[in-house]
Amino acid sequence: MQLAKVIGDVVATRKEPAFDGIALLVLQPIAADARPVGRTLVAFDSVGAGVGETVFFVRGREASFPFLPVEVAADATIVGIVDHWDVG
Amino acid sequence: MQLAKVIGDVVATRKEPAFDGIALLVLQPIAADARPVGRTLVAFDSVGAGVGETVFFVRGREASFPFLPVEVAADATIVGIVDHWDVG
Amino acid sequence: MQLAKVIGDVVATRKEPAFDGIALLVLQPIAADARPVGRTLVAFDSVGAGVGETVFFVRGREASFPFLPVEVAADATIVGIVDHWDVG
Amino acid sequence: MQLAKVIGDVVATRKEPAFDGIALLVLQPIAADARPVGRTLVAFDSVGAGVGETVFFVRGREASFPFLPVEVAADATIVGIVDHWDVG
Amino acid sequence: MQLAKVIGDVVATRKEPAFDGIALLVLQPIAADARPVGRTLVAFDSVGAGVGETVFFVRGREASFPFLPVEVAADATIVGIVDHWDVG
Repeated sequence: MQLAKVIGDVVATRKEPAFDGIALLVLQPIAADARPVGRTLVAFDSVGAGVGETVFFVRGREASFPFLPVEVAADATIVGIVDHWDVG
Repeated sequence: MQLAKVIGDVVATRKEPAFDGIALLVLQPIAADARPVGRTLVAFDSVGAGVGETVFFVRGREASFPFLPVEVAADATIVGIVDHWDVG
Repeated sequence: MQLAKVIGDVVATRKEPAFDGIALLVLQPIAADARPVGRTLVAFDSVGAGVGETVFFVRGREASFPFLPVEVAADATIVGIVDHWDVG
Repeated sequence: MQLAKVIGDVVATRKEPAFDGIALLVLQPIAADARPVGRTLVAFDSVGAGVGETVFFVRGREASFPFLPVEVAADATIVGIVDHWDVG
Repeated sequence: MQLAKVIGDVVATRKEPAFDGIALLVLQPIAADARPVGRTLVAFDSVGAGVGETVFFVRGREASFPFLPVEVAADATIVGIVDHWDVG
């Protein structure tokens, strides 16, 4: 999983029918020191995250698990909202 | 998922039989600020996208979901056409 | 799999219900010469690793195997604690 | 999927038994402007490609689909030979 | 798949029980011209490879296939030992 900041959202009316009603958010991945790292991406949301929040998201096949039994063609999904993290 | 611009198409007559009738498009991924990022790739289309449109696509195992129950050996598929996106 | 150093942990109260009770650790991947390489990431722990330990972790679909039969949406999981490694 | 040029082949006698009789080719991925991009890799061939041809290949779990019902441990497979492509 | 040189091994006593008896080797991926490329990684071995040998390995979900029916949480497995390769 990676830490990320929610920085925006995407509106798409023509899309896979299975996506209806699922929020599409724009994420900026961040490193453990909170600096942005790597490319922005579009992720689904399974936990009610909003713009400005720090989250962690999962990539790949597992990104569709929160929506089972519907098989959503998701490759990135927010699975948690971060309260805080500590790097020792 | 990633945002991308559709920039071309691919013609291939010798290919996996399961690919027949599915459009093969060339994509240039873009970042949240609309700048091109990373490599061009070839993706299948499940939503009727055309050259010049902004789309979002899914990578990996999930790229084959829109074509189920046929098991298409796809690792990148356009799953939505973007109306607009907002970065706060 | 990749070698990594456990450098911290993440606290998240709003998350996928399947994650309850699983430790979320922050990893810094390292190369065979022990130098940090690439981005920090958040991983689940299946072997009782702690901050400061050297571990190896698995990415992708396989990261959810240690938690079966529960389908945890994990894409990175610590699967071993390294005693030592030798590069010839 | 990615475009690639077939630049060589690999001979391996000690390998997974499921690989017997499947060609192992060396690919150089190329961008939409035909320039080489990224690392060479080894891919299986499901369409009869030869050295010098331009192909597109699939990565990941889907790379094993062309060989079903045999579960081949493939993560890159050539699935089409390109006649031509157009970038607008 | 990628070509790699086996450069070492890893000893880990606390690990997933499914890993018992499977060798954990350190790999340096190499390009078609035999130069090292990218990061070292830890891979399982399904073909009896040893330090110093040139191999090819598979990443991702497919890395667990050689160990079926046991579901091993592997994301990189050596699946062949290279006799030689030719780049035209």
